Amino acid sequence: MDTMKVLTIDDSSGIPAMKAGEFQKPVPADHELLVKIEATALNRADLMQKAGKYPPPEGVTPILGLEMSGVVEGFGSKVQGFEIGDHLFGLLPGGGYAEYCVIHAGHAMKMPGDMSFEEAAAISEVFLTAFQAVIWLGELQEKETILIHAGASGVGTAAIQLAKELRNARIITTAGSEEKCAITAGLGADLCMNYREENFADSLEETFGKNCVDVIIDFVGSPYWDKNIRILAMDGRVVYLAMMGGATIEKMSLVPVLRKRLTVRGSTLRNRSDEYKTKLTADFHKQTMHLFATGRLKPVIDSVFEWEDVEEAHERMENNLNAGKIILTGM
Amino acid sequence: MDTMKVLTIDDSSGIPAMKAGEFQKPVPADHELLVKIEATALNRADLMQKAGKYPPPEGVTPILGLEMSGVVEGFGSKVQGFEIGDHLFGLLPGGGYAEYCVIHAGHAMKMPGDMSFEEAAAISEVFLTAFQAVIWLGELQEKETILIHAGASGVGTAAIQLAKELRNARIITTAGSEEKCAITAGLGADLCMNYREENFADSLEETFGKNCVDVIIDFVGSPYWDKNIRILAMDGRVVYLAMMGGATIEKMSLVPVLRKRLTVRGSTLRNRSDEYKTKLTADFHKQTMHLFATGRLKPVIDSVFEWEDVEEAHERMENNLNAGKIILTGM
Repeated sequence: MDTMKVLTIDDSSGIPAMKAGEFQKPVPADHELLVKIEATALNRADLMQKAGKYPPPEGVTPILGLEMSGVVEGFGSKVQGFEIGDHLFGLLPGGGYAEYCVIHAGHAMKMPGDMSFEEAAAISEVFLTAFQAVIWLGELQEKETILIHAGASGVGTAAIQLAKELRNARIITTAGSEEKCAITAGLGADLCMNYREENFADSLEETFGKNCVDVIIDFVGSPYWDKNIRILAMDGRVVYLAMMGGATIEKMSLVPVLRKRLTVRGSTLRNRSDEYKTKLTADFHKQTMHLFATGRLKPVIDSVFEWEDVEEAHERMENNLNAGKIILTGM
Repeated sequence: MDTMKVLTIDDSSGIPAMKAGEFQKPVPADHELLVKIEATALNRADLMQKAGKYPPPEGVTPILGLEMSGVVEGFGSKVQGFEIGDHLFGLLPGGGYAEYCVIHAGHAMKMPGDMSFEEAAAISEVFLTAFQAVIWLGELQEKETILIHAGASGVGTAAIQLAKELRNARIITTAGSEEKCAITAGLGADLCMNYREENFADSLEETFGKNCVDVIIDFVGSPYWDKNIRILAMDGRVVYLAMMGGATIEKMSLVPVLRKRLTVRGSTLRNRSDEYKTKLTADFHKQTMHLFATGRLKPVIDSVFEWEDVEEAHERMENNLNAGKIILTGM
């Protein structure tokens, strides 16, 4: 059996750490591509999986890594539209921390001409999650107003760019420091509020009036619920992607939900079906690739590490030092 | 100025009551039809408006009546597709308790050949509300499972029929008596639960397993929140049209909203824009009129009153004696 280099989890010291190892080289199924990985990107789920808190679903490789870029080396009998040597990137159910991976052909996206592998590896998770939230679930319309919480986060920075480039929206963000506010302004946010210093709902009402927001992307959860509902406009939508500040809302009223005809949605990307991811990937690729090619959309890269330095990279994420994606390369 | 017969609110005794009167005959604007009303139907909003609790929006006639059927007598310069003598029905912002009304041409629907005016007058409010909730907002898909609370109500009976005829759905209802359960079964409900005698969520889990419902149409509000969320399936949707049992949920958790990727929506029909109502009306007309024509969809009529007996009709609704629409005719 062919083998390949991978990073595996070493639990022997009691503190899980990544170490170099070998694993069987995957063989593409009928609908899969075999890819020589050139770069992969870190996700918070990697840290959780390393700590044993986020086991991969059954049937999925135990190797970490939810996205990658690389070069096609082969493919199954039912794959169409790809050739050996194509440069591509995409979402993985796992397996990115390796020399090779297989990817569902419907989840693979061809790279525009002059995009680097590091850039391509930084796109899939944050931009597909943001695209799903802003365009598919939030149904943001041309020139509407969107409030993006955690605007300097990975998904936040992607959501800002998509709202601006695809919908010419008025973009409002929250973030926890002046530095992070500046990042969101640099990407196109019209107004950024430091949530440590102001009540975003009060500030928004003062600046734009009551009920001024059409779509909200939220990762915070219960602490923002009342304020979110208060500033949503008629037919407003709030999309929950996480609940990092808590999940339980004391005294939730249905009155504004009915009166303002609101929509509240929760979503995640990882546990979606292959079919859903294929449709999402295709729609995203069609609507955005020309914008990546011309530089109007840009993945935000924090840092690039050689794969041997993976522990250093994980530590950077663990300590919340990154602004943008952390890339591993050189496998 | 031309006048016409109407029913107006007489407050003189201290207890508001309807009485015969005269009012100016309306003149159709460019996009409006002038209709000789043949039948109108009662809505709960009529009782509230009569009691002074639900004033019509500014610019809307003070005459009660949110729907009607009748015959075209004239139209404005921009109306296309209608002729004098056409039989039609549709939603009104008000003005149905009268000899004549004007209606936005986009809100008027031509009647199938052998439909009676009484039947046509009974369709608009309940069927458009149900169509909006089940098809547009609930996005019910072919063969999905829908739970319709208050299944024997006007909107409930319309929702059952639409879910069955348009989506071949598995239909579950709740109602407050055996008699009402029998009505929903007669219309096509696969299972009806008497909410006075069983916990619908427990019963559903026993019968169909956990997380078995794709779409819920709810009028009850907070008392059903936890049970609704509990039995919704992955990607489930709950549409709130009212909150007759209360609006405040003491502890609402976002965990199932995210984990099951749920959508929670509130909506009403009356305060929608003319443009929205035009689109909804057109889509409804296209998808359902052949089913009304062949009797597969049928408005549920409780009783027909001569317009002079309007107080008796109101009393019947006030006392919740009706199952189906109450019609006024003979204006």
